[in-house]
Amino acid sequence: MNVVMKWQTEVKKIPKLNNLVLVEGLPGVGNVGKICAEYLIDKLKAKKLAELACEHFPYHVFINQDDVVELPKNELYYHKSTKKGAPDVLILTGDVQSMNPTGHYETVEATLDFISENYDIKAIYTIGGFGGKTLPKTPKVIGAVSSKELIKKYEKYGVKFEQGKRVGMIIGASGLFIGLGKLRGIPGMCLMGETINKPMFADTKSAQEVLKILTKIIGVKIDMRDLESESKKMEDAISKAKEIEKRMIDKLRQSVPSEELRYIG
Amino acid sequence: MNVVMKWQTEVKKIPKLNNLVLVEGLPGVGNVGKICAEYLIDKLKAKKLAELACEHFPYHVFINQDDVVELPKNELYYHKSTKKGAPDVLILTGDVQSMNPTGHYETVEATLDFISENYDIKAIYTIGGFGGKTLPKTPKVIGAVSSKELIKKYEKYGVKFEQGKRVGMIIGASGLFIGLGKLRGIPGMCLMGETINKPMFADTKSAQEVLKILTKIIGVKIDMRDLESESKKMEDAISKAKEIEKRMIDKLRQSVPSEELRYIG
Amino acid sequence: MNVVMKWQTEVKKIPKLNNLVLVEGLPGVGNVGKICAEYLIDKLKAKKLAELACEHFPYHVFINQDDVVELPKNELYYHKSTKKGAPDVLILTGDVQSMNPTGHYETVEATLDFISENYDIKAIYTIGGFGGKTLPKTPKVIGAVSSKELIKKYEKYGVKFEQGKRVGMIIGASGLFIGLGKLRGIPGMCLMGETINKPMFADTKSAQEVLKILTKIIGVKIDMRDLESESKKMEDAISKAKEIEKRMIDKLRQSVPSEELRYIG
Amino acid sequence: MNVVMKWQTEVKKIPKLNNLVLVEGLPGVGNVGKICAEYLIDKLKAKKLAELACEHFPYHVFINQDDVVELPKNELYYHKSTKKGAPDVLILTGDVQSMNPTGHYETVEATLDFISENYDIKAIYTIGGFGGKTLPKTPKVIGAVSSKELIKKYEKYGVKFEQGKRVGMIIGASGLFIGLGKLRGIPGMCLMGETINKPMFADTKSAQEVLKILTKIIGVKIDMRDLESESKKMEDAISKAKEIEKRMIDKLRQSVPSEELRYIG
Repeated sequence: MNVVMKWQTEVKKIPKLNNLVLVEGLPGVGNVGKICAEYLIDKLKAKKLAELACEHFPYHVFINQDDVVELPKNELYYHKSTKKGAPDVLILTGDVQSMNPTGHYETVEATLDFISENYDIKAIYTIGGFGGKTLPKTPKVIGAVSSKELIKKYEKYGVKFEQGKRVGMIIGASGLFIGLGKLRGIPGMCLMGETINKPMFADTKSAQEVLKILTKIIGVKIDMRDLESESKKMEDAISKAKEIEKRMIDKLRQSVPSEELRYIG
Repeated sequence: MNVVMKWQTEVKKIPKLNNLVLVEGLPGVGNVGKICAEYLIDKLKAKKLAELACEHFPYHVFINQDDVVELPKNELYYHKSTKKGAPDVLILTGDVQSMNPTGHYETVEATLDFISENYDIKAIYTIGGFGGKTLPKTPKVIGAVSSKELIKKYEKYGVKFEQGKRVGMIIGASGLFIGLGKLRGIPGMCLMGETINKPMFADTKSAQEVLKILTKIIGVKIDMRDLESESKKMEDAISKAKEIEKRMIDKLRQSVPSEELRYIG
Repeated sequence: MNVVMKWQTEVKKIPKLNNLVLVEGLPGVGNVGKICAEYLIDKLKAKKLAELACEHFPYHVFINQDDVVELPKNELYYHKSTKKGAPDVLILTGDVQSMNPTGHYETVEATLDFISENYDIKAIYTIGGFGGKTLPKTPKVIGAVSSKELIKKYEKYGVKFEQGKRVGMIIGASGLFIGLGKLRGIPGMCLMGETINKPMFADTKSAQEVLKILTKIIGVKIDMRDLESESKKMEDAISKAKEIEKRMIDKLRQSVPSEELRYIG
Repeated sequence: MNVVMKWQTEVKKIPKLNNLVLVEGLPGVGNVGKICAEYLIDKLKAKKLAELACEHFPYHVFINQDDVVELPKNELYYHKSTKKGAPDVLILTGDVQSMNPTGHYETVEATLDFISENYDIKAIYTIGGFGGKTLPKTPKVIGAVSSKELIKKYEKYGVKFEQGKRVGMIIGASGLFIGLGKLRGIPGMCLMGETINKPMFADTKSAQEVLKILTKIIGVKIDMRDLESESKKMEDAISKAKEIEKRMIDKLRQSVPSEELRYIG
């Protein structure tokens, strides 16, 4: 069998990174993970370390705005800490997750293998969305950890732990990185921003709440204004949509006999 | 291809085990196997030997009551016999079976390989449920063996052999451990507790019947009272449900013209 | 990945076989292949050479009449020629074919590899059924060959060649053994007995026609009477069923106004 | 696991090829790629270099007009340039593409590996169809490249670049050869002939437009008359079909009250 899965380094020389943590943000519920990872990369001016093409990704290529063909990819960026005591950071993001069940395990393992060849990881932080039926006003950030002792440490940052009451499982990379990392003895936490369960929805507000906490944990300061203004736009659009809905119902109220109204909305 | 399937030992030193038999009880029909295996582990105070994470298991993690992430796993426990002449016992249980057909074969082979690296297995006992349309009053325990000569030996313990009349095949680990073990020259028997074919049903009564026989075969004595009281509760709940059903039909009988009754229940 | 696919020899010493041909008859349309292979094995008193268990077969075991567990298997039998100049014969049969597309290729290759380790194969004859809409009175035996030159040779035995007019492709082992054998330079022919396209149907009549030709090709004489009587029984059962159908229509004809009859049968 | 995927050379001695480019034309939308590749092979009298059988292709064989069994295959042909400065050309075509997602990646990689063992590839040109809702009068040829700098070069030949406006992704071999080739540092372009999105449709007109451009790029002159006459026939058949449709509507117009006409066609 010919195998494609290979992390290719994009740097001439592997940079030295110390006291390293991995942050994962791939596409998923509410796209919370991907938004966080990309925002971090942008604001930290993180540099690309490596790319993964993989036979478990969709078997098509994208054509970008420059008419250039791009394979579906995962990417690793790195940020060297400027603050004393703060960890250096690897950030994993990408277009896709694996398209088949065993591929999920294999890409996560391949990624941990690739990183381990060059570095020791001190902690893994994965980011996901926890999708409910309605969009929460102020999304909570729910945590799940690789071992009980970590709860106390992270509660201080505002992460909520709910005794597995609402969230029973974590599907895909965000869960497997914690589970498979734990097998390697790496402590980890999955941060799940509350959001609504809607396909294609990009919840910048939920991402904002996750980043507020995550940046403190990894000891970086980033300019949050762009994300705030995105969240504001999203909120405005949603309240505008709600108002239009309300006005339509009011109009109906005037023209429709009241006893029929119970069937509306 | 990066491969995850790996049994990781959970002990500092591999224990010496003699005259060893393997008992398998993974999730399946009526959950008979899993109930038996977990009860045995609990009452024998069996110790964990090793864990299997595997790319053929579902690609999600569980969050437990402590907010701790757990990979879907299979687990091996061991029990050293305290009775002269009785075998030491390995017990295999877990959350899941493989999610894909070839994975079933591969996890069973990986497990037999892992055990064979350290031990000789003298016999394999697998536990399953044989699901019928109704819940049997006193579930029989039906056997299938790796070779004809074994029937005589196990009939004495109360295992029923029915010339393959009702059970034509055994799906999953319970069958493959016997079949693939046989290829390695290991004698084996699958014990199937009669139960009802209902998804998510956990038949403690059927498990009780299987354990009565299995404990004699492997020469252990365990306190069966917890399982008995569970079975009692299950039976009470079922008869209560039946009584409620009966009363509702009686009420209907009083209010509905008799000729329409044939359409009820 | 742990791999199961392995041919295990069932003999103490690999027998010497000369001028060897392979006959394949696995389950398929009308079960023509399997019937032929099993009948040949029985009448030639062919001996078992090896067995194949395989992770591409269904992940269940069978329980046979003796309450013994059997893995789904393919089997190779051998027959040493007693007639001067006639080839020795390997016969491949079994319970199942692979359950997944790539598995089909892989089991055929594994089988050719296993045989090639010990023997040179001079020719491959595979047996299949060609299913039409009705059951043919006298089933023809249609051939497809690994190279054009072979047609002349086999036409003499009564094999029909129809310029690919009716049969466009051969699915599964019967086709792949010819195609993949050809890649190895082994000449081959697929013999397809005409039959009806009905699941679970076992067409002994079609098998009889194939065997008449195949036995001549491989230079063996076998007692065909058991198969003939089976075919007779099958034909009797079918004509009885047709007669009952006819009588029912006749009865209807007497009781139903004629203009409604066009909707019957 | 037994593996089939193997390129087998069909020549006694690997020919020397210089300044080599690869042209890919496998089955796909409008069959544009396959038509182009086969026409090129025919008119250039390209010679067969190698064949690929593969466990990722369908698990059946074809029976051709000579009653000969053929495995589903991909094939490589080569053409030695007769014009100074023009590249030698490898042409990839075949019956099928892979039947499973990971197989797509693996066959493309296997093909690039096989070629790389013997040759350096200077450029890859893949051919596909871009299917719209209607059949275009004069199909445009849309390009996507492995890097931005190539656009300028190929625009001169008449390739249209549309900033990824209409075409967002390329599925299968035509896309992956560019994407995976790029990982190896090989420049490439996918040429997509506009066509209609209809299964089984073979768009000779669109293929003609692609070939006009491609032959200039690779510096060959071929007799286009056969393809032109095929396109003419196709266009005639389509305009005849349209005329028949129009006449039927006209007839209806005479017999149906005009206000009902809006429901027709």
